[in-house]
Amino acid sequence: MSDSSFPDLVLPPDGRQSETARGIQRGALRYLAARGLVGVPEFCLASGRRADIAALDMRGEVWVVEIKSSVIDFRTDRKWTEYRLHCDRLFFAVGPDFPLDILPEDTGILVADPFGAGLVREAPRHPMAGATRKALTLRFARAAAGRLMALMDPEALRGIAL
Amino acid sequence: MSDSSFPDLVLPPDGRQSETARGIQRGALRYLAARGLVGVPEFCLASGRRADIAALDMRGEVWVVEIKSSVIDFRTDRKWTEYRLHCDRLFFAVGPDFPLDILPEDTGILVADPFGAGLVREAPRHPMAGATRKALTLRFARAAAGRLMALMDPEALRGIAL
Repeated sequence: MSDSSFPDLVLPPDGRQSETARGIQRGALRYLAARGLVGVPEFCLASGRRADIAALDMRGEVWVVEIKSSVIDFRTDRKWTEYRLHCDRLFFAVGPDFPLDILPEDTGILVADPFGAGLVREAPRHPMAGATRKALTLRFARAAAGRLMALMDPEALRGIAL
Repeated sequence: MSDSSFPDLVLPPDGRQSETARGIQRGALRYLAARGLVGVPEFCLASGRRADIAALDMRGEVWVVEIKSSVIDFRTDRKWTEYRLHCDRLFFAVGPDFPLDILPEDTGILVADPFGAGLVREAPRHPMAGATRKALTLRFARAAAGRLMALMDPEALRGIAL
């Protein structure tokens, strides 16, 4: 998807998520809200990959939360390493039955259900460069506002380049 | 509202707008979308004042659009001059019957109805300082994502500081 278009107008749930993943997503978003972060699910990065959740705190720190609904889901995904380049802190969010010891040590861990999440391990901070943060914050702002526009007035975005 | 909270969770229409103003707002947002800008209505600035629409283009330029539903609405509002400090371009959006010659010359003009808007005069560009832009973009991002969260999961934001 090109930079000249609205970066991301797909609203979750988008049918590709399992019920388990959706529940973890909701619980993780609630946890983030309680810590003062606003989150955008299914956030499309500049690389084209989607982070399960990107979140922004009041100082502009960016967190990425990767949702893993099962061990297989984790084992078959090696793209999560790339997400670290697009955030200041990287978390995995998993369900209550997930074996936590298989998760990489240098990431945060949230254990979530549909009603909330608990912090098992804080994520180490690895601040992005200023230019990366600036571009990512703009992308985040446009993704969130574009989705909001699409919800408020679906007609508004018809017939224009997406 | 303090910076430590979600900046703005009110979703328009919020009952304070006239039907005319709502129609102009919708048309102006459609115009912005067609030009590639995403807009957030009723955007709360750092000063506490609300801009009728704040919008962000793909390079990060910020536009503010002030909606004037009548001549009286315009004449009784002198706070619009402040909005210039919080954007790179300032527009007025008015209905088809509004007398355009009373609008200040150094602002852009959109003539709007509920279905769209036409550009009568491009707004002059007066770029914000970098730090102002950075703070405003973050505020915009958090406002848009916060409203989206509130729509997706109203429970998520209950019981936390707002």
